[in-house]
Amino acid sequence: MLKVAKFGGSSLASSGQMAKVGEIVKADRFRRYIIPSAPGRRFSDDTKVTDLLYKCYDAAAAGEDIDGRLDEIRGRYQEIADGLRVKKVDLDAEFALIGDYFKRQAGRDYAASRGEYLNGKLLAAYLGFRFIDAAEVILFDAHGNFDEERTNEVCRERLKNVEYAVIPGFYGAMPDGSIKTFSRGGSDITGSIVSRAVHANVYENWTDVSGCLVADPHIVENPETIQTITYRELRELSYMGASVLHEDAIFPVRAEGIPINIRNTNRPKDEGTLIVESTVKSPAHVITGVAGRKGFCSVNIDKAMMNAEIGFGRKVLQVFEENGISFEHTPSGIDTFSVIVHQSEFADKEQDVLAGLHRAVNPDRIYLESDLALVAIVGRGMVNSTGTAGRLFNALAGAGVNIKMIDQGSSELNIIVGVRDEDFETTIQAIYEEFVGKEKKQTSR
Amino acid sequence: MLKVAKFGGSSLASSGQMAKVGEIVKADRFRRYIIPSAPGRRFSDDTKVTDLLYKCYDAAAAGEDIDGRLDEIRGRYQEIADGLRVKKVDLDAEFALIGDYFKRQAGRDYAASRGEYLNGKLLAAYLGFRFIDAAEVILFDAHGNFDEERTNEVCRERLKNVEYAVIPGFYGAMPDGSIKTFSRGGSDITGSIVSRAVHANVYENWTDVSGCLVADPHIVENPETIQTITYRELRELSYMGASVLHEDAIFPVRAEGIPINIRNTNRPKDEGTLIVESTVKSPAHVITGVAGRKGFCSVNIDKAMMNAEIGFGRKVLQVFEENGISFEHTPSGIDTFSVIVHQSEFADKEQDVLAGLHRAVNPDRIYLESDLALVAIVGRGMVNSTGTAGRLFNALAGAGVNIKMIDQGSSELNIIVGVRDEDFETTIQAIYEEFVGKEKKQTSR
Repeated sequence: MLKVAKFGGSSLASSGQMAKVGEIVKADRFRRYIIPSAPGRRFSDDTKVTDLLYKCYDAAAAGEDIDGRLDEIRGRYQEIADGLRVKKVDLDAEFALIGDYFKRQAGRDYAASRGEYLNGKLLAAYLGFRFIDAAEVILFDAHGNFDEERTNEVCRERLKNVEYAVIPGFYGAMPDGSIKTFSRGGSDITGSIVSRAVHANVYENWTDVSGCLVADPHIVENPETIQTITYRELRELSYMGASVLHEDAIFPVRAEGIPINIRNTNRPKDEGTLIVESTVKSPAHVITGVAGRKGFCSVNIDKAMMNAEIGFGRKVLQVFEENGISFEHTPSGIDTFSVIVHQSEFADKEQDVLAGLHRAVNPDRIYLESDLALVAIVGRGMVNSTGTAGRLFNALAGAGVNIKMIDQGSSELNIIVGVRDEDFETTIQAIYEEFVGKEKKQTSR
Repeated sequence: MLKVAKFGGSSLASSGQMAKVGEIVKADRFRRYIIPSAPGRRFSDDTKVTDLLYKCYDAAAAGEDIDGRLDEIRGRYQEIADGLRVKKVDLDAEFALIGDYFKRQAGRDYAASRGEYLNGKLLAAYLGFRFIDAAEVILFDAHGNFDEERTNEVCRERLKNVEYAVIPGFYGAMPDGSIKTFSRGGSDITGSIVSRAVHANVYENWTDVSGCLVADPHIVENPETIQTITYRELRELSYMGASVLHEDAIFPVRAEGIPINIRNTNRPKDEGTLIVESTVKSPAHVITGVAGRKGFCSVNIDKAMMNAEIGFGRKVLQVFEENGISFEHTPSGIDTFSVIVHQSEFADKEQDVLAGLHRAVNPDRIYLESDLALVAIVGRGMVNSTGTAGRLFNALAGAGVNIKMIDQGSSELNIIVGVRDEDFETTIQAIYEEFVGKEKKQTSR
């Protein structure tokens, strides 16, 4: 058994938080490779260390004095070191070196990476684990693209005889040794990459929520946590706006079939959410989750006998393609074909698209409908239960929501509903209440 | 006020039927231009005169003796003439001429047209109306295409000073005078063309049903008649399999905004169905009608991140286009795109399409689902009523129908549902019961 555990910025924002992480790691001897983020926010309007580092580096580039800024950053680490009584890390020397590199303009990626690097050093010292610099084991090629093959090989070799280690997240090195970071939130990716390289049994991703939620907590009060979700479902919910994991973080472990366990550092007893390739476990509810996004519009094209016209749909989509616009859905009726696009992407090219459509397919009528929201109801449980669509649309009717579009393909894994932007929150709430809220109340009676 | 009235084959199959037609025409002095079909079936395994004519002509072409066949056909007309005591039409001379032309191989179109021609002569004599040969007023160009402009002009001019006339349906003439027919059922087209040319106030289409039915009477027992339907709704129901009027028969009157009134010769007091361009009249029920067809299949394409790939949908549709396959719907989820096609059209080219899709878009997976039926719920009333989708899907769930696909575009005029072929009848019945049957029972209580 081997677990890789990644801890997010809020889990490592202060000595108090890091002490919790220490307890968690020590509680399970299979948690062998630990991936820390940089210290995050300690309170809601706090600044993340990564942002302080970027600002400090930019100030150095502008020729400003950065001693004050460096002191502020150092203060964050000092608090952690003092609170945990970690003496082994020489913060004086580290910050002297960082200050020096900043003045020599070693790169913004280098600057940002120091957040994870220093946090990793402190955490390793606190846990008594070996510190392994990510620059040694996470490798990019000369073009700056992540080098999957070499990383797998080098990382596996390096960790072969290391029982316990801390490897900072978010960055790696180019062939010339210079530091290169992933995009923001990239510590998730590091954890996923290391999990794959060492064939972990599970990739634990510790954060400040007890897993993926059935619905957005900004819309639904205190939504339930999803116990088990498939990669596919997660991908669908993320695509529709649910923010859980960095998209790129899913692929490395998914390729190996390694489950991800989202856990809450502040509630370590919660089992969190298990993200798996597939499972025979029945989901708790018919739907696994509901998510959505606003800001779409629908381009509706009417033309008599269009179905008899081979090439009609292709020509329509080609016009969007030529204007560089991707589409989300193409619901169609009889003699009517709609293309749902992002309003922000479409607005600029609106007239070009309309002119293009007139030229391409000579429609009877084109009309636009703006300010639409798309909501996806996702769940592997939907395949085996009849009546889901009935419950869904009855709930929406009960909430007074007017349905602008419905799209359900043969996957049966999701139903996508188009509503007016202004009905977006009501839609999510009504769906949650129907499929989760109601059932919860029945169970608790 | 001017009405054009077309009578179908069953309305003119015998002297008894033609007597009913006489009463109908005489009951309204505005019924000025009458378009007859050829005599249809008098009982369920009777043969239509048009079919007798085709067979007789083919026998002549094969050098067979056709006297017996001509006698059989003549018998049909003789019965009508005798029953109505029409003496003015010289059937001896007419059939001598027809026999002569058949032997000289005057064309299958000529042969078929004689059914309407003779029926028109008899009806005109019976009504005391002027007989005008369709060859005079329905004109085709040298390529055999219907010549709309010349027909309009010639037909209007010819009828300007004719108060009452019978014009046989189904055929017209080429510039060289030879006879050319529309496709089978083409008398509907003649009626529509004449209605447009003379700016009729209404085009009455008399048949053996009291109008368009809400659902197929082979599936739903004694379905309700639709009182008022828009051209658009009718087109949608016809497209989905409801057989009402010849498709091409709708365009000429629609272009002029002339309403069509479908009436029942056997129940002339029934008001039938009024087909209109648009109407403020509320429909009797939320749905105007339900219709569907079997024999579709779904080609489901999965690929991670497909929505980010501009051109994905276009490339998919292009493969179908290159194989000459038209598609019905393209429902999509997240990372999944389905193309619904006619199974019969797809089956032959299945492997070419699959190979083409692999080449074009390199999908993660393609899977086929066969034996699907599409059912359309059509109704202008759906726009203004919420809860339709809820009622619909609840009704289907109650009937144990598994939904394979849902497609509702922004038109809101229809919802299309995909189900398994074996659930087709149950689906139609459940929808009829929910939206019409139930309401009827409530009203009658």
